[in-house]
Amino acid sequence: MSTVPIKDLSRLCIHTITTKPWSIEEAVRHYSESGVRGITVWRDALRNRNIKQTGEMLRRYGLTVVSLCRGGFFPNVDLNTRKAAFDDNRLAIEEAYELGTNKIVLVCGADPAQPLEESRKQIFDGISALLPEAASAGIKLAIEPLHPMYADTRSAINTISQANDMVKSLNSSWVGVAVDVYHLWWDPSLEKEIERCGRNNLLLAFHISDWKSPTTDLLNDRGLMGEGCIPIRKIRSWVDTAGFDGFIEVEIFSSEYWKQDQSEFLKKIVTSYKKYA
Amino acid sequence: MSTVPIKDLSRLCIHTITTKPWSIEEAVRHYSESGVRGITVWRDALRNRNIKQTGEMLRRYGLTVVSLCRGGFFPNVDLNTRKAAFDDNRLAIEEAYELGTNKIVLVCGADPAQPLEESRKQIFDGISALLPEAASAGIKLAIEPLHPMYADTRSAINTISQANDMVKSLNSSWVGVAVDVYHLWWDPSLEKEIERCGRNNLLLAFHISDWKSPTTDLLNDRGLMGEGCIPIRKIRSWVDTAGFDGFIEVEIFSSEYWKQDQSEFLKKIVTSYKKYA
Repeated sequence: MSTVPIKDLSRLCIHTITTKPWSIEEAVRHYSESGVRGITVWRDALRNRNIKQTGEMLRRYGLTVVSLCRGGFFPNVDLNTRKAAFDDNRLAIEEAYELGTNKIVLVCGADPAQPLEESRKQIFDGISALLPEAASAGIKLAIEPLHPMYADTRSAINTISQANDMVKSLNSSWVGVAVDVYHLWWDPSLEKEIERCGRNNLLLAFHISDWKSPTTDLLNDRGLMGEGCIPIRKIRSWVDTAGFDGFIEVEIFSSEYWKQDQSEFLKKIVTSYKKYA
Repeated sequence: MSTVPIKDLSRLCIHTITTKPWSIEEAVRHYSESGVRGITVWRDALRNRNIKQTGEMLRRYGLTVVSLCRGGFFPNVDLNTRKAAFDDNRLAIEEAYELGTNKIVLVCGADPAQPLEESRKQIFDGISALLPEAASAGIKLAIEPLHPMYADTRSAINTISQANDMVKSLNSSWVGVAVDVYHLWWDPSLEKEIERCGRNNLLLAFHISDWKSPTTDLLNDRGLMGEGCIPIRKIRSWVDTAGFDGFIEVEIFSSEYWKQDQSEFLKKIVTSYKKYA
């Protein structure tokens, strides 16, 4: 495999949720001191803050605001709930604009009370209706296919092939795909679909973490890179080959790590990034 | 959808693991009294028993022994462990023959210490080497693709498309596919791949249960049919259309149900089978 370790941290981005116990002010100070150069902001981290000023603060620390996480959750059997979700996505576009990022990650949603096909249709319609506003704000929407174990409530888009197909149907330069190794590592068509995604300039984001054996919780037991069985560097080589040169984003949900000292955890993130990303 | 409820229990099969607290002697007595006509035997249920006599007992109760569960777990980084697994699969063929069933379900295995591609190769090689003995014993091997959340340690075959491809490569009438709705319901290509599987006469088994929202455990929180979001009857209609007319097998791993009175649980299985299968 030709892909080699990245010796510096110029492409390292961390999601605020990864160090959830920290406020965004604490997070950015620590990230900056450690040499991290990118941050993806989860919307809960912006609560009770002036978003524009928060964006300015992040940049003063020398960080790029890689994306806002997350929009989506379009499907619902109830029309009013769908409308509320759509309005929340419009709000996310405003927030992203204020924050000064050019990308929103979409966790597309699913409603177990209706067929997956219906949820997929509602996702398509939701994104489609959102695209004009995204375009006028200069914000790209990144569809993140989620692991099939989240097909009941979190996303009816569960493979990169589905995401690529949907992006193709949407036919807009304002929508693309976010590749997260945790969700996609098992897929035998992953290399081919990453290539397809890159060829069409649709690869907007690359998220990393690891799959622990055993994994004890469906949501909050992700591992640090190197702790599990995901061939992270191999997948990065595919992403490299596909022409992606953006940030490599560490997104770890872990009840275990959230209990620990976050400064120590951040050191581990940096070390494992250098070794395994 | 044209598929209608099956009014009688002539096609209902239950896996012994579903009523794990019962011995196989208790299970068969209760199944038989309830009108169940098929049983799939998990190998742990045969421990310390004469297998031939156990098979005869099951038939005396009027039950068909639908399959033996399970062979597989072929891959391992260590050659001796692989050899031991292979010998255990040979033993499973003997046990199936003694028991008087003509089918073994394969949970193919995976080793997180090696790439999925290598595990897949070892699965192919293992089944390939096993086929002559399976054929001479008159036992078919059913590859069961497992949900991607089990790709680390339980199976590197995670979609029906992969299973169909592997069966095609193996090119033997002694190997086919077991479709389990719990593992496959999320897959957008499921209908098409069930059709492909049936067209080639490779659909050997059909397992049902349900996906609960939320699911609280990766292994032992399966739902009774109707408790979750899997469109069981819709998938059965695809299986029907594909020409499958074998047993419909209830396979539920549930810490919750295993704690309850198993006679009450069995009544619920029969009721939900009639309503949702």
